[in-house]
Amino acid sequence: MRLGLLYSGGKDSTLAALLLEDFYDVTLATAHFGITDDWEHAERAAERLGLPFERLELDESVAADAVDRIREDGFPRNGIQRVHLAALEALAATDEFDAIADGTRRDDRVPTVSRAQAQSLEDRHDVEYVAPLSGFGRGAVDRLVESTLDVTVGPSEEIPRADYEAELRAKLLAEEGPGAVAEYFPDHDQTHVTGRR
Amino acid sequence: MRLGLLYSGGKDSTLAALLLEDFYDVTLATAHFGITDDWEHAERAAERLGLPFERLELDESVAADAVDRIREDGFPRNGIQRVHLAALEALAATDEFDAIADGTRRDDRVPTVSRAQAQSLEDRHDVEYVAPLSGFGRGAVDRLVESTLDVTVGPSEEIPRADYEAELRAKLLAEEGPGAVAEYFPDHDQTHVTGRR
Repeated sequence: MRLGLLYSGGKDSTLAALLLEDFYDVTLATAHFGITDDWEHAERAAERLGLPFERLELDESVAADAVDRIREDGFPRNGIQRVHLAALEALAATDEFDAIADGTRRDDRVPTVSRAQAQSLEDRHDVEYVAPLSGFGRGAVDRLVESTLDVTVGPSEEIPRADYEAELRAKLLAEEGPGAVAEYFPDHDQTHVTGRR
Repeated sequence: MRLGLLYSGGKDSTLAALLLEDFYDVTLATAHFGITDDWEHAERAAERLGLPFERLELDESVAADAVDRIREDGFPRNGIQRVHLAALEALAATDEFDAIADGTRRDDRVPTVSRAQAQSLEDRHDVEYVAPLSGFGRGAVDRLVESTLDVTVGPSEEIPRADYEAELRAKLLAEEGPGAVAEYFPDHDQTHVTGRR
């Protein structure tokens, strides 16, 4: 069975790949808008894992809508949620996969995929949606990452990664300058996977 | 990391074991009340999987409460849910494991473990609770079972298994006769795992 996994090069989506790789032919798919080349970080992480990689180009209107939402809200959560759902839709719509997946965890506030959203995706696209980490809390994920992956950790702006946030930050930076990025995106540490243990 | 997985010998808990075995030292733990010897079916399934097995004896008052609840309700759902939560508590309380797990699926109506219940278990027992199938729907589970396990399928009363239902049925049968079992437990097919593919 072919499975496409939304992939950022971060620890969650990498751990999701390890959980799935014995059961599916996993392709790591990184969604991007063509704003930056940050998807290349995910491609390199995929090479180090030894799993096939592909880019999933999303319409730039998805980024524009997300940035508008972030500006309105004053925080990124709902904007990022929109992009994630759009990425799952786009991945399902490629018709390349029997199953699609992401790295959402039990305790994630964003992105989240409700049971109803999962069922709707599956029914409309005749695909299975699986979220292998959705039954793992933060502590369990951290311990599994520690035992299976080599990672680097640091502030968002210094860690190479390919999640939606990087491109949305770049778009905000271009449109409104560094103040807007600092205002809307609170400081938090990110991880980037450098290899398997 | 040592993980105890609530195990019935059925397809869901067996698939959960396969998903976890590369990441944890998995012990299959079958909860029972000492009403019947049905736990032996789970022990045999565990032997065929090549994973360590242990019995988890629950107080018979748990079965008595569950049967009372099933009688009151006229259907087994809430009674089985109680037993499942009691089994998770008992498994966590053994203090043998860094993590405990079960085979609950995304679409299960029962048993279910809410995010709040999971967090409470983890906090009170200093253990991780993981539900590796909770991000998989019925279709995805069925396809994975097909590709990884040999199973037999048949009506509940003919399939050897070791879930709580078997003992609760036996208790009802002893107390009220076959009519009560037929009344409270609707016909449905069960699966029993006979080996890995």
